[in-house]
Amino acid sequence: MPAVPHDLCTPAVYLDHAATTPVRAAAVAAVTAELGRVGNPSSLHASGRRARRVVEESREALAAALGCRPGEVVFTSGGTEADNLALKGLWWARHDAEPARRRVLAPAVEHHAVLDALDWLAAHEGAVVELLPVDAEGRLELATLEASLARDPGSVALVTCMWANNEVGTVQPVAEVAALAAAHGVPVHTDAVQAVATLPVDFAAVGVDTLAVTGHKVGGPVGAGALVARRDLDLVPLVHGGGQERDVRSGTLDAAAVAGLAAAVVETVAAREQEAVRLAALRDELVRGVQAAVPDAVLNGAGAERLAGHAHLSFPGCEGDSLLMLLDARGLECSTGSACSAGVPQPSHVLLAMGHDDRRARSSLRFSLGHSSTAADVAALVAAIGPVVERARAAGAVAAGRG
Amino acid sequence: MPAVPHDLCTPAVYLDHAATTPVRAAAVAAVTAELGRVGNPSSLHASGRRARRVVEESREALAAALGCRPGEVVFTSGGTEADNLALKGLWWARHDAEPARRRVLAPAVEHHAVLDALDWLAAHEGAVVELLPVDAEGRLELATLEASLARDPGSVALVTCMWANNEVGTVQPVAEVAALAAAHGVPVHTDAVQAVATLPVDFAAVGVDTLAVTGHKVGGPVGAGALVARRDLDLVPLVHGGGQERDVRSGTLDAAAVAGLAAAVVETVAAREQEAVRLAALRDELVRGVQAAVPDAVLNGAGAERLAGHAHLSFPGCEGDSLLMLLDARGLECSTGSACSAGVPQPSHVLLAMGHDDRRARSSLRFSLGHSSTAADVAALVAAIGPVVERARAAGAVAAGRG
Repeated sequence: MPAVPHDLCTPAVYLDHAATTPVRAAAVAAVTAELGRVGNPSSLHASGRRARRVVEESREALAAALGCRPGEVVFTSGGTEADNLALKGLWWARHDAEPARRRVLAPAVEHHAVLDALDWLAAHEGAVVELLPVDAEGRLELATLEASLARDPGSVALVTCMWANNEVGTVQPVAEVAALAAAHGVPVHTDAVQAVATLPVDFAAVGVDTLAVTGHKVGGPVGAGALVARRDLDLVPLVHGGGQERDVRSGTLDAAAVAGLAAAVVETVAAREQEAVRLAALRDELVRGVQAAVPDAVLNGAGAERLAGHAHLSFPGCEGDSLLMLLDARGLECSTGSACSAGVPQPSHVLLAMGHDDRRARSSLRFSLGHSSTAADVAALVAAIGPVVERARAAGAVAAGRG
Repeated sequence: MPAVPHDLCTPAVYLDHAATTPVRAAAVAAVTAELGRVGNPSSLHASGRRARRVVEESREALAAALGCRPGEVVFTSGGTEADNLALKGLWWARHDAEPARRRVLAPAVEHHAVLDALDWLAAHEGAVVELLPVDAEGRLELATLEASLARDPGSVALVTCMWANNEVGTVQPVAEVAALAAAHGVPVHTDAVQAVATLPVDFAAVGVDTLAVTGHKVGGPVGAGALVARRDLDLVPLVHGGGQERDVRSGTLDAAAVAGLAAAVVETVAAREQEAVRLAALRDELVRGVQAAVPDAVLNGAGAERLAGHAHLSFPGCEGDSLLMLLDARGLECSTGSACSAGVPQPSHVLLAMGHDDRRARSSLRFSLGHSSTAADVAALVAAIGPVVERARAAGAVAAGRG
């Protein structure tokens, strides 16, 4: 309905795939096919049964791609809802059954969908949230988790640990976290939203109890995600109603979105190995090129295993927001951190947790590549970054001189 | 992705628009246009700002159509989430501020998205839920609400009252409910999901505090809804995270779904008056025709103001489920009640609350008309219903004879 100027429809160079990535043709086809059909998947007549079949076939495809059983997939409106359902649902179930279980353990670099849900559990529900330190690369320190669990295992309600960080891209030792927690009978949630595009995400193999994914980070529609949850797990629903999704998540099933999600995940996972190699090469070329143009630019998380498409760099003496806007003016689109907290003038909690100061945290940009990224995108950034940083520094010096 | 036999794609006669209605061409166009573009509405670059503009222009259009201010629209994944956010969010906010406020008042005929959320608040959060009686037409008895409020107004957290019933179609006296509650400073939520298609839904005029709508009942996509909520209202979020939707509902904004929702609501509201007249005439023709073929069929809620597209009939001596399946076999699609509880072998709580017994409740069918309904749809049902009822009765008699 709203009119959109044509020149804005196709950005020249999109380097913000971690915020959202273009919808794949297969997903567009799946969504639009379903938009042309009628039928509530809960209705008993032929149209309803047809829509239900779309949902169930999508569930099976998604499960096969993620290493879980179809009955473990709970469709949600996205990753944020899936994280909230897992954390609050697990908290309530565990705490109701054993009121002494009040502690929730999480690395300090989690996404806001996790951190803000935990803040609420602490402020409103009496949870005791322990944010665990990470090393200089952003990796959870397993020894601290182990010690924290061992200190008083009976007081832990749950552990949550993202599969890979959305800002810096650092991959977390999720399997090790799951094993440590399992030794104490503590359930583990993982936010795998950023991981599915380039890492082998296998629910059964990694050993967690719940896992959140979303469509729009892998070329599916926004508004479609899932929580993978073990069948025998007690999970208190966030949203009650008609009893869809085995009573864990009510609301009319969105056959179109679910079909688009499954199509995107299936295509993503099928191409994953090759794509991870391709993106890592492009990403390395991006980092090399940027550092050639701006020799004092620092790659964050350089020493850790990182997502293939992520490059998070600090530009000493610059404000990340200024760099972002200068690049945007040249048709180059990136972010300073998470899109979910864009516009909020706070230094990244991820960089701070990695031991950097405010100044370093504020001087950073995230470039993230995805399925439609090309060598030309990288070349365009490499050509622009030197002059942009120079201009930002000059502006910063003028501003400092005025002070 | 899943293959769908072509012959099931276009049902011959769809009489279940209250479960979900075909997506309007304008909404399909809005959704598909947005699926072809990239941009997270929270991103600061041009693509993000473009997506944000789609969201905000959609918000303005929706607000104008529903009689509220744009800042009062909180986008959700649908009506069920909107109901849950309103009820739980209001409950927590009110109960936190004044722990003595534990009572929640609701007519007994609410949708399961309301009833099940209230059940949880009672079982888990200590709410005292009072289900108020309705008359034989399904209409809330205002005197009972008034007396219940007056008994101890300081103990009431909130009142909820649907705008119109999803099964029988009975319109509730929402403005009167809002006025009664306002006299005691008690906030009111209304589920207007079924009302938007044919009634003048005006948030400011009716005087409620929160109002739930959803896209897929008016020709928008599934997975797109909104809670209209007064700006000065305290509402505890269900889903925490990046702080979207003024921190009341986090999660990446779904520009495609939001644009589709707005397009559908705008088109629906623009055509509403004419459409209500057209559908009421078709509906009356349907009732006349069915009663001519089955003289003892009884129209439920006949004495009340009802939704223009709803006809809810009981067929003495028949099982609703059997009738539904026999009609379905002839390509005629309807429901026994709410799609959200379809498949659950329980008599409708709505019919029971209206004073009918199990047998009457189980013998009912809901036929619901919508924007794509035609006289031919009605004629097809009228031609089929006689033989179908005869066959169901014969089968019932055989089954009874066997017993």
